[in-house]
Amino acid sequence: MTILHNALLDGKAVDIIIDGNMIQSIGEPRTTDTSAVDCTGLSIFPGLMNMHSHAPMTLFRGLGDDQPLDVWLHDYIWPAEQQLTDQLVYEGTLKACHEMIASGTTFFNDMYFRLPAIARAVEDSKMHARLGYNIFGDAEELDRSDVVELLMHPSARVEYSIAPHSIYTVSPTGLRRCADMCQRLHLPMHIHMSETQREVDDCIATHGCRPWELLDRLGILDQLGDSIIAAHCLHLSDHEIELIGRHGITCVHCPNSNLKLGSGFRFPMTELADAGARVMLGTDGAASSNNLDMIEVMKISALLQKGWRMDPTSTPAAAILNMATGGRSIAPRQRADLFLAPVKSLSDLVYASHGESVAMTIIDGQTVYRK
Amino acid sequence: MTILHNALLDGKAVDIIIDGNMIQSIGEPRTTDTSAVDCTGLSIFPGLMNMHSHAPMTLFRGLGDDQPLDVWLHDYIWPAEQQLTDQLVYEGTLKACHEMIASGTTFFNDMYFRLPAIARAVEDSKMHARLGYNIFGDAEELDRSDVVELLMHPSARVEYSIAPHSIYTVSPTGLRRCADMCQRLHLPMHIHMSETQREVDDCIATHGCRPWELLDRLGILDQLGDSIIAAHCLHLSDHEIELIGRHGITCVHCPNSNLKLGSGFRFPMTELADAGARVMLGTDGAASSNNLDMIEVMKISALLQKGWRMDPTSTPAAAILNMATGGRSIAPRQRADLFLAPVKSLSDLVYASHGESVAMTIIDGQTVYRK
Repeated sequence: MTILHNALLDGKAVDIIIDGNMIQSIGEPRTTDTSAVDCTGLSIFPGLMNMHSHAPMTLFRGLGDDQPLDVWLHDYIWPAEQQLTDQLVYEGTLKACHEMIASGTTFFNDMYFRLPAIARAVEDSKMHARLGYNIFGDAEELDRSDVVELLMHPSARVEYSIAPHSIYTVSPTGLRRCADMCQRLHLPMHIHMSETQREVDDCIATHGCRPWELLDRLGILDQLGDSIIAAHCLHLSDHEIELIGRHGITCVHCPNSNLKLGSGFRFPMTELADAGARVMLGTDGAASSNNLDMIEVMKISALLQKGWRMDPTSTPAAAILNMATGGRSIAPRQRADLFLAPVKSLSDLVYASHGESVAMTIIDGQTVYRK
Repeated sequence: MTILHNALLDGKAVDIIIDGNMIQSIGEPRTTDTSAVDCTGLSIFPGLMNMHSHAPMTLFRGLGDDQPLDVWLHDYIWPAEQQLTDQLVYEGTLKACHEMIASGTTFFNDMYFRLPAIARAVEDSKMHARLGYNIFGDAEELDRSDVVELLMHPSARVEYSIAPHSIYTVSPTGLRRCADMCQRLHLPMHIHMSETQREVDDCIATHGCRPWELLDRLGILDQLGDSIIAAHCLHLSDHEIELIGRHGITCVHCPNSNLKLGSGFRFPMTELADAGARVMLGTDGAASSNNLDMIEVMKISALLQKGWRMDPTSTPAAAILNMATGGRSIAPRQRADLFLAPVKSLSDLVYASHGESVAMTIIDGQTVYRK
């Protein structure tokens, strides 16, 4: 049993009693228990969810900055990835987990290779994660029994998804195979969608329709519906927004990566939410976003919406925190995944803080980080 | 004499010897002097220059977030400013100075009221600043002998400028008076220019020309030339960019404020620089930008240029550091205003750090901040 004493919850001082990995109760500050954790001056928030990452890529932080996208991929990132080993992937992921924990993130939704090494780092870090098995081409890996075996055995900390990289690197056959396997194993699909205008143009040239129309035509939207998690979703037609919304898909906005790679900036946040989509936030890998700071992502997301819409009332702080936490709250019977920061208000957290501001992070009721 | 031992300068380990307030020499790390400051693992950079701020407004951080611009001003900021006293302005400025020093900023270019109280806080904080005397209407204050007296007596730490608020709050008569006084006292002019589309539209409706054309018509550009420092400069015609460039004016980009207030985002950084303008960076006041973190401003400036131009090669890290430091360098006979951070590269400073990352700040050769 852990008691968080005198923490600020929505500006009100409370004691929070955690039993095992769950919040048991929240009440007036009164404890005189000397083992209670003194949280005076700290506000408490639900742990942040980084919904699009490539954790091992912390190894490539700063590699090929300021280069054109194709040079960055061909001359920097892909050659570097050829050098990876299980040990490096483990170390890179552990580094990523420590960076995320120290900045208030308690869960991440990843996409990469060498999942057993990544899973080992997640377990060691005590975070929660969903690891996407990255698929290219025709998805032949899904015929391998060891792959299917891996995907069928989540742990208390590590779940899995199937992660076809994109519609331009996975064939229609591969996409269909991924969808069927998702359905068979009851796994989400994690995919990059509509990241660049070129992806859209090439899709129209190759398939005669836009990327989301291709997924629809392949039957994948009806088949998987709201278990699809799509990163980026920058370049969308009205018809695509309607398709995404109708199927309740999760769209993950990664503003730092989109800006830095010059992919675009007009993420249709309001339009997607109004259509029925679930909007969440992510950092992308540290090779493109340079850090894994979800507090920074909250600020840049809110500022960017206000900026390109030229509307200061767009995307207020409470809305952006909802997107960064999946709408979770600090309440009894919720899992005790949370963080504390020395701020007086939500505004100070979103607009005046950074990951470095976080004072304490708790996952499954355990204090995994303390400044 | 201070010795900074084993600091990284452009990735190379050096010893830096500071004599008084100046860098005396830079050489190979060799000191065995036990009084030397061990800078192992820290990179060294010129102190950041925050070229547009309203320091006392740290008192209003978070006030009226997410509100429309006119509501924010009329219902929140202006009533709050009515409550200010010299003591509050002193305290707000001191808070601002401490926040800036702790995030690597060694100089700020301010604009506000109650300058003696602000000057006192600057002296106490040991920063350097140029304080702009804020002018509205017809600039009658400039007839007051106490105002002229103040402006004529800078100190080693505090210089002054005359700061007509904008072309829509200062009359043409007032603007002319400000310009004449700037010329007479050899002071720069600090002004908000072209911040919103509405400012441009109203100027055209009232004066029949755009804001910079108005300053030109009033003779102010020819009169003051490169001693004009203009904040924002978001909404510019080609003709205005040519005017600004030809007169060598300093344009201060404040991306956080511009985004948060919904003023716009297409700051013509390259176009202004190509035309001959000097581009620098600022936070604006903490009421609109919520913090005074110039490292964050560097990142958001670089990302925003890459983003709206859809060009990842735009505004590389070295260019943005130049804008944030006024092109200064760490070299002998330079004033010892600098900061150190635990980063391995400039990329890590610009793209992966925040103000909180700063480990040490030195102003006039004195260590004014140490984490």
